[in-house]
Amino acid sequence: MSEYQLHCFAQSGNAYKAALMLNLIDAEWEPIWVDFFNGGSKTPEYLAINEMGEVPALVDGANIITQSGVILDYLSSKHGKFGATSADHRREIMRWILWDNHKLTANIATARSMMNFLAPEKRKQDVIDFLIGRAKTALKVLDTRLATQRWIVGDTMTTADLSCVGYLFFDGEFSIELADYSKVARWRDSIAALPGWKHPYDLMPGHPLAERKSA
Amino acid sequence: MSEYQLHCFAQSGNAYKAALMLNLIDAEWEPIWVDFFNGGSKTPEYLAINEMGEVPALVDGANIITQSGVILDYLSSKHGKFGATSADHRREIMRWILWDNHKLTANIATARSMMNFLAPEKRKQDVIDFLIGRAKTALKVLDTRLATQRWIVGDTMTTADLSCVGYLFFDGEFSIELADYSKVARWRDSIAALPGWKHPYDLMPGHPLAERKSA
Repeated sequence: MSEYQLHCFAQSGNAYKAALMLNLIDAEWEPIWVDFFNGGSKTPEYLAINEMGEVPALVDGANIITQSGVILDYLSSKHGKFGATSADHRREIMRWILWDNHKLTANIATARSMMNFLAPEKRKQDVIDFLIGRAKTALKVLDTRLATQRWIVGDTMTTADLSCVGYLFFDGEFSIELADYSKVARWRDSIAALPGWKHPYDLMPGHPLAERKSA
Repeated sequence: MSEYQLHCFAQSGNAYKAALMLNLIDAEWEPIWVDFFNGGSKTPEYLAINEMGEVPALVDGANIITQSGVILDYLSSKHGKFGATSADHRREIMRWILWDNHKLTANIATARSMMNFLAPEKRKQDVIDFLIGRAKTALKVLDTRLATQRWIVGDTMTTADLSCVGYLFFDGEFSIELADYSKVARWRDSIAALPGWKHPYDLMPGHPLAERKSA
């Protein structure tokens, strides 16, 4: 059995944050597919793993860790990669992970979900427009940040980058042109160029077009 | 001058998370009012303090700390209160703070803002309904958690409680009956009973009805 198991599904950018970290550090891991679109994250069995009813959940022996930001912190501490070198540095990384969860991922993920995965009769254009507007505000903040530095925190890639980039490889599935945020686009491409990088649909199971992107 | 200054305004539940912590630990602190509703968090001067354009920002001498979750972690480490006793404990606290930012605060705060602070012609009922629906899902998760334990993490109050409770004292300003989540309501009342507790409108400046609640 692999060292880690990751409860995930291909369409989840939050699960991807953890899966990408695992791949970039060359960890031994295997995905466990959660049938999210048929309620697989709300079953009693899954709620016993994560009462929040969310993916990802990382299994490390007897430990189960949830919330992508915590998984990233855990893996960086354990493997000594992409993590902090001081308490202040760690807080600066967590500052961007929290911001991502609140302002970037929350809006992009929810808009994309409504645009792609919700029955058409349940889609509300006002809601999509509202979320996309907020996501654009967040992308502007990130673009400004990346105008003066290559990575979000400090001189090297950290888990803050992995958190913030999670949903940005799904571009084309939400109504934002990433090219309009040129520093963000450049930074995203530099992550895609790292050894071990894979597109979410190639890294996690369950997408009908899995393996299409890097095939 | 006080030990700490907190950039904040009365209506911000995120600033309140930090302000309440400062009051509960009996820190010497003073608020610095941000004129949020007139763009005060987006001025060049304020963006130099926090490029994310958000409150709160905590000033501790030469250090400026932003994101409520990071401020709570910083203060708990520095003062040895409401914090973690081990690395695992700290991650469990951060798990709930991240969840709060993503699923509870993000939805309640945004719905409340639209219902109360946006010009009526800009309010979108579909957006409010959507956000309130997601906030109710989050409150159900929290209510289930609090059915089996008094505090969110472990046997004592932690910063996870302070983060999650931040917006719940603004009930009456968003369309959720907190009484429908009886464990959450009980837990919130137990926080309100702590020495040093004050309502946000009594703790931070700028609300027209400041000091109305505990007057």
